[in-house]
Amino acid sequence: VPATPASRPRIAIDVMGGDRGPAVTVAAALARRDVADLVLVGDEAQIPAAAGHGAPRVLVHHAAEVLSPGDSLADVLRRRPDSSMRQALRLLAEGAVDGVVSGGDTAALMALSRAVLHMVPGIERPAIGKLLSGMHGDFWMLDLGANLDCSAPQLHQFAFMGTMLSRHVSRLEAPRVALLNIGTEPHKGPDVLRAAAALIDADPRLHYVGFIEGNSLFAGEADVVVTDGFAGNIALKAIEGAARMAGHLLRGWVDGLGPLQRAGLWPARRDLEALRHVFNPQRYNGASLVGLSGVVVKSHGSADVEGFQSAIDEALLEIRGRIPWRLAEQSGDTG
Amino acid sequence: VPATPASRPRIAIDVMGGDRGPAVTVAAALARRDVADLVLVGDEAQIPAAAGHGAPRVLVHHAAEVLSPGDSLADVLRRRPDSSMRQALRLLAEGAVDGVVSGGDTAALMALSRAVLHMVPGIERPAIGKLLSGMHGDFWMLDLGANLDCSAPQLHQFAFMGTMLSRHVSRLEAPRVALLNIGTEPHKGPDVLRAAAALIDADPRLHYVGFIEGNSLFAGEADVVVTDGFAGNIALKAIEGAARMAGHLLRGWVDGLGPLQRAGLWPARRDLEALRHVFNPQRYNGASLVGLSGVVVKSHGSADVEGFQSAIDEALLEIRGRIPWRLAEQSGDTG
Repeated sequence: VPATPASRPRIAIDVMGGDRGPAVTVAAALARRDVADLVLVGDEAQIPAAAGHGAPRVLVHHAAEVLSPGDSLADVLRRRPDSSMRQALRLLAEGAVDGVVSGGDTAALMALSRAVLHMVPGIERPAIGKLLSGMHGDFWMLDLGANLDCSAPQLHQFAFMGTMLSRHVSRLEAPRVALLNIGTEPHKGPDVLRAAAALIDADPRLHYVGFIEGNSLFAGEADVVVTDGFAGNIALKAIEGAARMAGHLLRGWVDGLGPLQRAGLWPARRDLEALRHVFNPQRYNGASLVGLSGVVVKSHGSADVEGFQSAIDEALLEIRGRIPWRLAEQSGDTG
Repeated sequence: VPATPASRPRIAIDVMGGDRGPAVTVAAALARRDVADLVLVGDEAQIPAAAGHGAPRVLVHHAAEVLSPGDSLADVLRRRPDSSMRQALRLLAEGAVDGVVSGGDTAALMALSRAVLHMVPGIERPAIGKLLSGMHGDFWMLDLGANLDCSAPQLHQFAFMGTMLSRHVSRLEAPRVALLNIGTEPHKGPDVLRAAAALIDADPRLHYVGFIEGNSLFAGEADVVVTDGFAGNIALKAIEGAARMAGHLLRGWVDGLGPLQRAGLWPARRDLEALRHVFNPQRYNGASLVGLSGVVVKSHGSADVEGFQSAIDEALLEIRGRIPWRLAEQSGDTG
């Protein structure tokens, strides 16, 4: 069972993770020192000295090794005992911090989290969950890639975890849970989805509303969308691809405008820019590895300072929402 | 083996299929009478008399029954022997026409096609294929929902069928084939995808380029994207959902413009409207049931006259490209 969180959130930052390492992660962490105690985990030679000065609530925890994209999972697990990612997770396992944020490789973070941390009792596997913005509000979607194949009980556990995230991070009282499928009729799709539907529907803690199709994801029909990691990852990336295509078309439209029209649009230019980037991964940066005995948030490797701050903020929200602790308290009947 | 196509394409139209029936289907068919011989299959009482007059190349073929959304597949197959959909497919099976276009239910069309038509030798199951528009050209994607689970040999067959569509409908010489997966590294994803990759890569008729992720679908990296029907349907509908979301955001942006800016945009308004509808299913109307001994094209049930014409045009392209005949000639080593 996870330790009770401290009154002020304590977060370990894997400063070596991500494409740009400390240049991004340290700057992002320092910008959050007013709301959290931070432990910068990484090669102290690469962490600016200023990070420690005048910042009693920012500590530096030296880790000699850095994971590289060429490392296999076996390397990550066995041959890099002093990696910044592993050291950050160890601090979490020891109760020295309440959460970890890393921009390192997803598979490495998942493998190390499972090796170093415990699962919440009653939860078999962690899921990757993310808050997405719809037309009429936000919704949680999970699993987005941690588990290719999922049993009906696992999908039921994801529904429970998504409900807790929606209730205690998004502050919805009775989140509506839907299962991603290729049709809304109860007979549609593979057997495992029908079995999961029965389990979720029978659980009095969950508010099941049925199957949902991808074309309704953003229509506000569900607050929690449950899927196995293969379909979830396929859907999320297809959405990203469609968003890029939409941005490309929008750019083409703007380029085709006359100079007077473009001048007229100038005051709305920022909004137009925002529109083009609305599906930008940065905006949603911070995917949660949920089901572990501590808050673990994965940042995009390509995140900039603002993006990495979003990932830290996501960890803060989950710590304040006491997600792992609530999961442990209430997961009794899900296993 | 399918009969050789007539010099002038002959298409049977299931005029009763689709949400608006003859009002849409007959009008769309008549608009194509200059390029094809058309057989209007359905309740002759509901087909405007004008459809026959002065149109020697438009015939009416009476079918007494109409499939309804309440019909089970058992009803469709056993209790509606004289449905317009089945009669149209029978004309195709008998060689009286070269293709069928229907806006009826996909599952019904798939089941009846398999019951009435033969499969191309060497192809185990039909796939639903569709031409999608990317940033740097179009690409075929299949299967989009006909087969939930697919074996590696079936995915190999889809790659072959997609290649033939790309070569003889889209006129690409050596279409690049990719498999939809959750990562591009060769070790990623389920075993069946790696087995399919090996089969496709070893086939000298096919130009395999590796795995593709959803976020690259529109980036011009592949001309044929192969997937099982579950993942394909999930991806396609997620794209539709994202496109609706993008349209919603664009509308919000336009609504937030000042009156002067809006007036300035007036000349570009049509393009803006086009942009909003760029992912509109109508634009891509016409999904192909490929692998059958004849051209069968499914129109969206909600298609308008223009949309249904697109579906007829798709059938025309496949007949002119001799798709079923070429599949039969060349499918030897795929089975």
